[in-house]
Amino acid sequence: MPEPHHRFLRACLSLPTDRVPIWIMRQAGRYLPEYLAVRKQAGDFLSLCKNPELASQVTLQPIDRFGLDAAILFSDILVVPEAMGMGLSFGTGEGPILEHPIRSAGDVDRLIVPDPTRELDYVMQTIRTIRTALADRVPLIGFSGSPWTLATYMVEGGSSKNFSRIKGMLYDRPEVLQALLDRLVSAVTDYLNAQIRHGVQAVQIFDTWGGVLGHDEFLKFSLESMCQIVAGLDRIGPDGARVPVILFAKGCGAHLERMAESGCDVVGLDWTTALGQARVRAAGRVALQGNLDPSVLYASPERIRREVERVLTAYGAHPGHVFNLGHGIAPDCDPQKVAGLVAAVQEFSFGGAHR
Amino acid sequence: MPEPHHRFLRACLSLPTDRVPIWIMRQAGRYLPEYLAVRKQAGDFLSLCKNPELASQVTLQPIDRFGLDAAILFSDILVVPEAMGMGLSFGTGEGPILEHPIRSAGDVDRLIVPDPTRELDYVMQTIRTIRTALADRVPLIGFSGSPWTLATYMVEGGSSKNFSRIKGMLYDRPEVLQALLDRLVSAVTDYLNAQIRHGVQAVQIFDTWGGVLGHDEFLKFSLESMCQIVAGLDRIGPDGARVPVILFAKGCGAHLERMAESGCDVVGLDWTTALGQARVRAAGRVALQGNLDPSVLYASPERIRREVERVLTAYGAHPGHVFNLGHGIAPDCDPQKVAGLVAAVQEFSFGGAHR
Repeated sequence: MPEPHHRFLRACLSLPTDRVPIWIMRQAGRYLPEYLAVRKQAGDFLSLCKNPELASQVTLQPIDRFGLDAAILFSDILVVPEAMGMGLSFGTGEGPILEHPIRSAGDVDRLIVPDPTRELDYVMQTIRTIRTALADRVPLIGFSGSPWTLATYMVEGGSSKNFSRIKGMLYDRPEVLQALLDRLVSAVTDYLNAQIRHGVQAVQIFDTWGGVLGHDEFLKFSLESMCQIVAGLDRIGPDGARVPVILFAKGCGAHLERMAESGCDVVGLDWTTALGQARVRAAGRVALQGNLDPSVLYASPERIRREVERVLTAYGAHPGHVFNLGHGIAPDCDPQKVAGLVAAVQEFSFGGAHR
Repeated sequence: MPEPHHRFLRACLSLPTDRVPIWIMRQAGRYLPEYLAVRKQAGDFLSLCKNPELASQVTLQPIDRFGLDAAILFSDILVVPEAMGMGLSFGTGEGPILEHPIRSAGDVDRLIVPDPTRELDYVMQTIRTIRTALADRVPLIGFSGSPWTLATYMVEGGSSKNFSRIKGMLYDRPEVLQALLDRLVSAVTDYLNAQIRHGVQAVQIFDTWGGVLGHDEFLKFSLESMCQIVAGLDRIGPDGARVPVILFAKGCGAHLERMAESGCDVVGLDWTTALGQARVRAAGRVALQGNLDPSVLYASPERIRREVERVLTAYGAHPGHVFNLGHGIAPDCDPQKVAGLVAAVQEFSFGGAHR
């Protein structure tokens, strides 16, 4: 198999690169005025996700503005539960609302495993539109929520503070939760494979809420489902290139070794894990993505530069580092700060023939 | 020095006990109907904190109802910022509001280091009232917020979601944050020493928000301040008994080894850290407190029993375990479930001559 030439894909596969690639979680988003303009045009957030032309436009905006090393499909993790038959809406400022939350085995049985080229065809169209617009400038990342993270929204009926309903289910009716997770494994595997067939060149699984689980519960109810998905993915794209898989689990630095054994190519870390120690713990089994505290972007340009240097130095001159924030960029972030961040990564990691 | 006879104090000092002691963070609180009745009588939450008679009553309620092994002073961590000169109020359902948030070195300079027997004398009166009412049935725990955690409220002006203001300060004007932390170290040290002089028999420092910090930032901006406080505490009470110090930092399992070197007697763990591994990592330097997921209390009585057994088994038959939840008990918890929890701890850890 030929080696990829894009530095993002090379770093994901722990191949040497000219410098450390950078992309930013939620890089197409509300902090960008040009995004807000397109979103207004679309009407609302969900309409924007379902409009391939406009979704493609916002996907490319941060690439055009900042020269990032990868684009990520503009969408939302909750389009999967919607495609499974749950009603989805976004209240103004109140976060997502999923109608008829899952509370019983019967509720799970009623969920369909969607055909991504039918119920989620607008995503596939978006992918094709983006790939055409990108013209191979940078690779396109596809994504999905993890089964556990999707299940939290489906059981709670939306966002949650203490996850009381899904935790109650986990401890009291683990068989119902497991049935839900099993169905999600099928749905997410099909969805990501369809994304790969339609042109995404890497995929990331977001386990936003894995960190609310106890140690053993994370392994059993979150990581296990992610491992099943990883095992079921077509790792070779339609162009014959290898498709790297990134696992990102917020607040799960303690589980790094287990995540590194999941079969993924990259583990994404939040900012609470020391990156240098993480590299030693990963022991070359996976590349690492991260892990600047998104709050550093509230600081001065000079301080941002110093913190970027610190992250790069912590990982050191080894292959397999994808620079990113440790979590999504905040909506109130100043885009100028992001430009400085990207410039700093390009500057400090440039000329690394040793990488 | 004579060994304490209360099993809670013995466990804190890693001495053998007849069984594992249990107390529950936020054990005097809204989940108890008798608490709500007294709070109504007091008027509001802050008035209850400042009424020694009523605060003493609610402190004893969970002891009377459940037979817990320690009482904890009923108060709030934010009475310290209030005593330092910040206005404090609690909006209905909106969390605390601190007037005139700290934004500059000048703001820090204006903060006073309170004399606890003057500005916080109502707390000292409460402690005396509780001790009299307890009549040595169980020991009384005093507490304070950690400097970092108090600083988050003081800089943000209340609760926060992304801690943008204090993170901005941390990265951009660390000297201002450090000055604030230094002042808080003095205030908290004085406050806890006054609590000890007035009769608390152990103290806990709550670092609720240490987990939002990066690895190095936690060590520098949270743990360091806590270490200074621990070093400044009078570890012998007025009765000549040793006063154990508990450090609880939510989301900080990765820092266990460093916390164990802080000079404290006990490290409190949230439920995301595997307790058996934590005991090995603590290597006998400290006792451990925790760490049942509070959400287990949403499960059935039988499941609660099984999870209690699992926590006790994870720690194993070694001295130095204080049973607790991994975080405060939720306001919507059913008190009957708590009774079952306490009974399970008493049952499964009974007869442990081997402990």
